[in-house]
Amino acid sequence: MLLENVLIVDPIDGEYVGTVEFEERIEIIVKTNKSEYKSILMPAFVDPHIHGIMGIDTMTASESDFRKFIEYEAYEGVWYFLPTTVTCKVEGLSKIKLPGDLKLHLEGPFISKKRKGAHNEDYLIAPPYDVEELSKYIDLYDVKLITVAPELDRFFDFAQSCVKKDIRISLGHSDANFEIARKVFENGYNRITHFPNALSPLHHRDLGMVGAGFYLDFTVEIIADGVHSSPEFVDLVYKIKGPERIILVTDSISATGLKDGNYMLGDLPVKVTDGKAHLEDGTIAGSTLRFSQAIKNFRKFTGCSLKELAMVSSYNAAMDLKIKGGRIVEGYPAKFVELNDELNIIKTWNF
Amino acid sequence: MLLENVLIVDPIDGEYVGTVEFEERIEIIVKTNKSEYKSILMPAFVDPHIHGIMGIDTMTASESDFRKFIEYEAYEGVWYFLPTTVTCKVEGLSKIKLPGDLKLHLEGPFISKKRKGAHNEDYLIAPPYDVEELSKYIDLYDVKLITVAPELDRFFDFAQSCVKKDIRISLGHSDANFEIARKVFENGYNRITHFPNALSPLHHRDLGMVGAGFYLDFTVEIIADGVHSSPEFVDLVYKIKGPERIILVTDSISATGLKDGNYMLGDLPVKVTDGKAHLEDGTIAGSTLRFSQAIKNFRKFTGCSLKELAMVSSYNAAMDLKIKGGRIVEGYPAKFVELNDELNIIKTWNF
Repeated sequence: MLLENVLIVDPIDGEYVGTVEFEERIEIIVKTNKSEYKSILMPAFVDPHIHGIMGIDTMTASESDFRKFIEYEAYEGVWYFLPTTVTCKVEGLSKIKLPGDLKLHLEGPFISKKRKGAHNEDYLIAPPYDVEELSKYIDLYDVKLITVAPELDRFFDFAQSCVKKDIRISLGHSDANFEIARKVFENGYNRITHFPNALSPLHHRDLGMVGAGFYLDFTVEIIADGVHSSPEFVDLVYKIKGPERIILVTDSISATGLKDGNYMLGDLPVKVTDGKAHLEDGTIAGSTLRFSQAIKNFRKFTGCSLKELAMVSSYNAAMDLKIKGGRIVEGYPAKFVELNDELNIIKTWNF
Repeated sequence: MLLENVLIVDPIDGEYVGTVEFEERIEIIVKTNKSEYKSILMPAFVDPHIHGIMGIDTMTASESDFRKFIEYEAYEGVWYFLPTTVTCKVEGLSKIKLPGDLKLHLEGPFISKKRKGAHNEDYLIAPPYDVEELSKYIDLYDVKLITVAPELDRFFDFAQSCVKKDIRISLGHSDANFEIARKVFENGYNRITHFPNALSPLHHRDLGMVGAGFYLDFTVEIIADGVHSSPEFVDLVYKIKGPERIILVTDSISATGLKDGNYMLGDLPVKVTDGKAHLEDGTIAGSTLRFSQAIKNFRKFTGCSLKELAMVSSYNAAMDLKIKGGRIVEGYPAKFVELNDELNIIKTWNF
């Protein structure tokens, strides 16, 4: 396959016009000396935090639903994503049957009651002593990422045993103070789930998890829907932390791509109005953000370069999960999104 | 006068060993090629926000008290400072009689009830239409700086008439939302009083005054006592905004330099315990910070260079108030602080 005179956007090498020859992998890239191009070629996107889309919910999806999930994500330009659970009885995790190469992000039940967000408080528990305990309920091979509140009992034991199994830890739904945040950061736990939502806020006498996210070199998930945080907040994160430390996620739920109305997130009823998902008490309950929109929003909010957009939409997340991807260089998987100048997706390649 | 082989610290030219010849002004500076020096020479400090020291309170000081005030500040290495009022009946301002060259910082009464801090709510009012109205109560020539909450009625009219009289506006004790903060910033009001205290907090869906302080190019006063904000918060401000946008202030009260006990701040009783000043309800009521300690704290909290310390302790404040000072270059006033390597003051020159 050959894509000629496209604006190649690589998160490391930057933007240049060239021609890409590829099959499964990128075989040859030839840089041309032109400034005109027919379309923009970006590494396909990675979404490590997505609960559902188009009526499909990770908690209830059948194998064929998961296959549709993959298909819908392909339309969004996402080639790799982690279907994400919500808090349920830990036994309930055993119902989830993933097909093929999909792996899970477990969000809860090991999170803070005070910062539970749209998670059912009845099922929240401290993490078990080690990850093997979890294997009673779920095939550990299916789990790639777990969001945990670091202030809970047994955090360090559990987190360490996750790391040994190549399961990545993300800190989230946490009421930790700055002292705890610094301690876990210094122990290598450097990822934060949907920053700054459901985290102890920045206070000037205790930076909390939000302040820690700014102050220390954490990598943070950002939901760039303009609802979870204001455009200026997203821009502030970009200005302070830089594009190297941001991972765009949708946190989207089954209502995504569907009309306003009543939906479920796990076993909690959610009402979607003007595309905004809330529990009955007004708590934000995930998003209806599409990844194809997230990249436009992020660029609009921050004025970032395309190179930086490739970092936050693909490369950083791939690196974070140790997946080979997110670049357009020879030898890498040929997973591309072709876009026009308005960042509308023209075609996704090789999904 | 001659100071030989001192480490000259200039906020622009940086640090180098040299010899300074001066009388009232700096006459000649000769750079030597040595690396050893006998002491550190910094521009003497500027404190634009200080209520009192050693039993003296701006609100009740006699002319001879103000002269002692100047003397005490000289020990602290401060050659220029603004005695600062607290909120009182606006008529009460007419009691303040300044000697010589001293000028005032009016903190209140034009501040927010919600963010009043240690100001008496009974006297809080919106600003008058113009600054001439104030001249009924106080000689405008005596006023250099006014802290105002920008969300109050008539802010723009008042602020504009202040600027015309060369009175600087600082935004403070404010509950303004981000929209207001942005609007006033865009209109040139770019200074914030004792950031982040007594300001609408950073929220991720409305940045508030604290978020605006981080996000926009405001210059902010910082009380580096480790009480008004944590060392990490001060370091966060330094990392985000850089030393160019920070002005160290003490916000210190009459109890400064005296023992723990009961004091007054304006007409509010203040209790000082372990050097921390609080109202009965626990609200922080100014500090007992000495400027000579503020510079040590800031360096410890941030690890800044001496050049940067000269910016935040003198040059920035001088520039902000349009005073010639804060530098060690030929032609500038010879106002110096001589320090040892632990930043203890050895001698203040030419006060």
